[in-house]
Amino acid sequence: MYVVLNKSATSEEILELKRFIQKTGHGALEILDGSVRKIGIMGKKEGLGKEELKKFSIVKDVVKIGKPFKFVSREFKKEDTVIDIKGRKIGGTDLVLMAGPCSVESKEMMMETARVVKANGGEFLRGGAFKPRTSPYDFQGLGEEGLKYMREACDKYNLLMVTEVMDTRDIELIDKYTDIFQVGARNMQNFSLLKELGKTDKPILLKRGLSATIKEFLMAAEYIVAFGNERVILCERGIRTFEVATRNTVDVNGIALLKEKSHLPIIIDASHGTGKRSLVEPVTLGCILAGADGAMVEIHQNPICALSDGEQSLNFEEFEVLCGKLKKTIEFKESLRCL
Amino acid sequence: MYVVLNKSATSEEILELKRFIQKTGHGALEILDGSVRKIGIMGKKEGLGKEELKKFSIVKDVVKIGKPFKFVSREFKKEDTVIDIKGRKIGGTDLVLMAGPCSVESKEMMMETARVVKANGGEFLRGGAFKPRTSPYDFQGLGEEGLKYMREACDKYNLLMVTEVMDTRDIELIDKYTDIFQVGARNMQNFSLLKELGKTDKPILLKRGLSATIKEFLMAAEYIVAFGNERVILCERGIRTFEVATRNTVDVNGIALLKEKSHLPIIIDASHGTGKRSLVEPVTLGCILAGADGAMVEIHQNPICALSDGEQSLNFEEFEVLCGKLKKTIEFKESLRCL
Amino acid sequence: MYVVLNKSATSEEILELKRFIQKTGHGALEILDGSVRKIGIMGKKEGLGKEELKKFSIVKDVVKIGKPFKFVSREFKKEDTVIDIKGRKIGGTDLVLMAGPCSVESKEMMMETARVVKANGGEFLRGGAFKPRTSPYDFQGLGEEGLKYMREACDKYNLLMVTEVMDTRDIELIDKYTDIFQVGARNMQNFSLLKELGKTDKPILLKRGLSATIKEFLMAAEYIVAFGNERVILCERGIRTFEVATRNTVDVNGIALLKEKSHLPIIIDASHGTGKRSLVEPVTLGCILAGADGAMVEIHQNPICALSDGEQSLNFEEFEVLCGKLKKTIEFKESLRCL
Amino acid sequence: MYVVLNKSATSEEILELKRFIQKTGHGALEILDGSVRKIGIMGKKEGLGKEELKKFSIVKDVVKIGKPFKFVSREFKKEDTVIDIKGRKIGGTDLVLMAGPCSVESKEMMMETARVVKANGGEFLRGGAFKPRTSPYDFQGLGEEGLKYMREACDKYNLLMVTEVMDTRDIELIDKYTDIFQVGARNMQNFSLLKELGKTDKPILLKRGLSATIKEFLMAAEYIVAFGNERVILCERGIRTFEVATRNTVDVNGIALLKEKSHLPIIIDASHGTGKRSLVEPVTLGCILAGADGAMVEIHQNPICALSDGEQSLNFEEFEVLCGKLKKTIEFKESLRCL
Repeated sequence: MYVVLNKSATSEEILELKRFIQKTGHGALEILDGSVRKIGIMGKKEGLGKEELKKFSIVKDVVKIGKPFKFVSREFKKEDTVIDIKGRKIGGTDLVLMAGPCSVESKEMMMETARVVKANGGEFLRGGAFKPRTSPYDFQGLGEEGLKYMREACDKYNLLMVTEVMDTRDIELIDKYTDIFQVGARNMQNFSLLKELGKTDKPILLKRGLSATIKEFLMAAEYIVAFGNERVILCERGIRTFEVATRNTVDVNGIALLKEKSHLPIIIDASHGTGKRSLVEPVTLGCILAGADGAMVEIHQNPICALSDGEQSLNFEEFEVLCGKLKKTIEFKESLRCL
Repeated sequence: MYVVLNKSATSEEILELKRFIQKTGHGALEILDGSVRKIGIMGKKEGLGKEELKKFSIVKDVVKIGKPFKFVSREFKKEDTVIDIKGRKIGGTDLVLMAGPCSVESKEMMMETARVVKANGGEFLRGGAFKPRTSPYDFQGLGEEGLKYMREACDKYNLLMVTEVMDTRDIELIDKYTDIFQVGARNMQNFSLLKELGKTDKPILLKRGLSATIKEFLMAAEYIVAFGNERVILCERGIRTFEVATRNTVDVNGIALLKEKSHLPIIIDASHGTGKRSLVEPVTLGCILAGADGAMVEIHQNPICALSDGEQSLNFEEFEVLCGKLKKTIEFKESLRCL
Repeated sequence: MYVVLNKSATSEEILELKRFIQKTGHGALEILDGSVRKIGIMGKKEGLGKEELKKFSIVKDVVKIGKPFKFVSREFKKEDTVIDIKGRKIGGTDLVLMAGPCSVESKEMMMETARVVKANGGEFLRGGAFKPRTSPYDFQGLGEEGLKYMREACDKYNLLMVTEVMDTRDIELIDKYTDIFQVGARNMQNFSLLKELGKTDKPILLKRGLSATIKEFLMAAEYIVAFGNERVILCERGIRTFEVATRNTVDVNGIALLKEKSHLPIIIDASHGTGKRSLVEPVTLGCILAGADGAMVEIHQNPICALSDGEQSLNFEEFEVLCGKLKKTIEFKESLRCL
Repeated sequence: MYVVLNKSATSEEILELKRFIQKTGHGALEILDGSVRKIGIMGKKEGLGKEELKKFSIVKDVVKIGKPFKFVSREFKKEDTVIDIKGRKIGGTDLVLMAGPCSVESKEMMMETARVVKANGGEFLRGGAFKPRTSPYDFQGLGEEGLKYMREACDKYNLLMVTEVMDTRDIELIDKYTDIFQVGARNMQNFSLLKELGKTDKPILLKRGLSATIKEFLMAAEYIVAFGNERVILCERGIRTFEVATRNTVDVNGIALLKEKSHLPIIIDASHGTGKRSLVEPVTLGCILAGADGAMVEIHQNPICALSDGEQSLNFEEFEVLCGKLKKTIEFKESLRCL
């Protein structure tokens, strides 16, 4: 349920209404949808009637949301959400490019990678310090040391940092370093983690689970929003199907559908989505045109020597080519929109 | 296995070599790969040695093909195959757009559809006269009557006709009318049908099976080539996954991978691929950029009244918009290639 | 739609009613459901009203069938269908065991296999003379020669023959030899083939398609029934999923569900279902207890030398052990039913 | 890698060897495999050579394990693992039946359920106090209150308690109440949780992830073992496939394969596996015969009123029938083994 406010509503009046909503045990999510101000009423289904809300003179309308995913839906908010992080925008027409290695391996590596990302117009450095590995005997990441290397590299090159959090107990630590929390595919329905991240004030990059439906994906995003953090970035990274020629199957339908059903920005990660270096470029560009707002790619100075995911990492030359084409594709997409 | 010929080889010499190959019980598939002439040797694995072939002075090299799919692979032919049908080219830089209704419903309908297809720059009219329906109680198509309507419409508007064949016994009949035989997803591994179509001299549009791997898809194409018809057009139309929000899942990875592994042209059918009208445009455009050489779309004057597949059919206005964007996307893709 | 007849109805009266139904362009499928006689009215949805039928004094009731699959459903027939072929019964409490090699390789092989099948209580010999192979370069079966070997072996050991038909043009030929037509997984939605087999008078063993839903599977069976042949045996042989450790995933849920939704008998083929020799026994027995009425297994004198599917074929000793356990499992299942 | 000890090895000698192994930074997992004593050497791949180990006179052999899953594999331990919890055994020939509601709803409910479980020969009470729900707006469980109700009911009826843990931060609390920690399907690759549970001393019931391969499932179990807790119970609860007629697809092949590849006990949860009350019995029994060591079922006094998962819960009468058949099936399975 949400209320539509009159244009003339003053901040004092809005604040009064929000306090009233909160007193009834509901959350109040204030948004600007184009030029329309709305307040989402989150939580219990019962206890707060349309009539009570309509008594407030600033309330123009009270609207029920039909979908199970509510505040992430286009029913609630028609306009695309643009997430602003220190001036960099995700969800608009800017180039959004998150690049870096699968695992943080050393300080030198992160510095060199950051330099290359920046030089190619990227604004985000990705890298894993805490790694979810299928085998307990595989490299599990550098931990806090890795976070420090990333932060230093980001500070030097004025990049934003994106890194994965796997455990509610690590949120506080990672929060000291990162700009964006990443939730990995295997944790998409780790509801404890989603709830805690809902209480943080940093954007969350939420990766789609390997066998999550679009509905479940949006419901996971809804968890984060329902617990207080509306800055969620969706990330399609391929789903698991019968096909074995590629690591996963990028759901390009899903990208177009998410764009239709939700106002949240969407990022394509074709590195995990395909698992094959040679497919990263065509699939990234295709998905951008199908609706994605940006791309995440794994890059490595020397993919053959990568501690993890070398087969799907671009080297720096391949990355440079991709960046050039990505910029042109975003411009082209914008030109189609204006037709 | 294939042989690479010397540039100086004369037609007489080539013919002599082909006759020799055929006498040993093998097929001989002559192609021009860029400026290099090759002869594919198809069939039994044994019986014809490298040495015997090298005795021919025009034979420059004899090469083994490692892949299970042989003559459809890039190992055999590096350059993209361009299929020329009455002057229209599939697999090059021309706009390839196959449009029409799911089922042929009437003569008027086909005439009006053909007019619209032509007006928007399309060169191919699609439509089903023999329909594979899940239920025996559903409309099974108009049969030969439908073929006649299509042919008439194609002749009037100078379009090429694409229609499905489901039964070896129907090939002769359909051959009288169509320009391209379509093999539906449910018949992708109907090997009897593939073999018979390999003996025809018309291009085959081969749709990927609902749960066919890329390898199986290429092996099905290989059947047609092995039986004598190298003019195969691949068509990605979505695979079956756990996702229920869309009818199928378009495998955009698969398109990029097919383009890498095979020299055959690829068409995207986002109507069946998504099952949702609103997703046809973004998914078609995205797949073109990811590697597809053309698009197939279901269109209907009045989708709500369609006898089948109304939910995924574009109306004529939506089709016009798609055509405009498709042309621009093909140009844009070409501009990226030249970077 | 079907009519329930009064117990007192005479053959003359029933015949009269059937002729009336047929005159309206519908099929009339007479069955005995326990002690209740019913006539299924197949075909067009319109044109024959309840009222007209109720005018016949022998008509006790006229019932609509809600499901899309109609005459294969429990709504139409509550009691299990038992198919009697030359005295051997499929769908009751008898042991149903169909065994033999993937491909017929020689006469000696079929003779020896038939002897072993008979010695272990089997009543059906399976084997492929026309083989659907993924690659055009693989062994495609012995054709009619293979059929002859099978027939001879069946005649000698008094077994029933089960073999695959892949092409409508082969039905006549195969009909001369076989007792049961098998439709392979890849042809489950080869509707032309299903229709033609509906016109034959021999039982059809219909294998579930690799990615066919239970509903589609029953609809395929419905095709055969709707075209005149109600003797369909369903065969679960594994579906295609993301799991790569086994060739397919046997859908044990599907077996239990088919038993609930349909009156047709069901056979489990754990050879194709698992693709691994060591799993054939546990999965066969488990599926029998979950509802399957019989088993199909690939056996081979020397699996390592099999021309196809050696990895999933039992040798004769393993087959003997399986047979002993299978008999006991069928008895045990019957004892549970009587609890 | 593991060492096989001489039969004559004394406890002092074994302890000395274990200390030596631990000093090198490896874990030492001592097991009895039939009558053979072995020590698994867990952890880093390098640093401890065969030669060093063979210097100990009690070391009979040093063996490498080829599989990626090591200490859960049959390569390490040939005999089935039997987990003893307060005298109740999982993995042997005893009836293992874990039953209870999806969610703990009230004290009365748990008391009544416990009474029924015990009366039917069950030894384990299951129920969720912390619930992983797809929607943030659904009932999330009673929390500690629910744990108390379960504990009280278990104490009164002398049952063992099984309940889910979703968050590393909850382990300490739940540990005060439960006998077995359950890891849900959505957390199967929550590696932080697996590691922490590896440090506890209670058995872990590990549910297979919705799209986890058998290999990934065993690797998740390996995590728990590698971090110190070898008492892992595997639970097949259905995987996600294209089939929509059932909630999930029970992987009966997987059960048989797990039994072959691993020495750990396996439980079948056909309630989640099928999602349909009527299928729980046939699928449970079938899976027991295919290899499962026990069953988990959801039961509810009044399934229609259940706060969650009512459609798949048995009522008490259905449960009684299942219990009777389950006991007979376990006996029958044992009789087959002795053939």
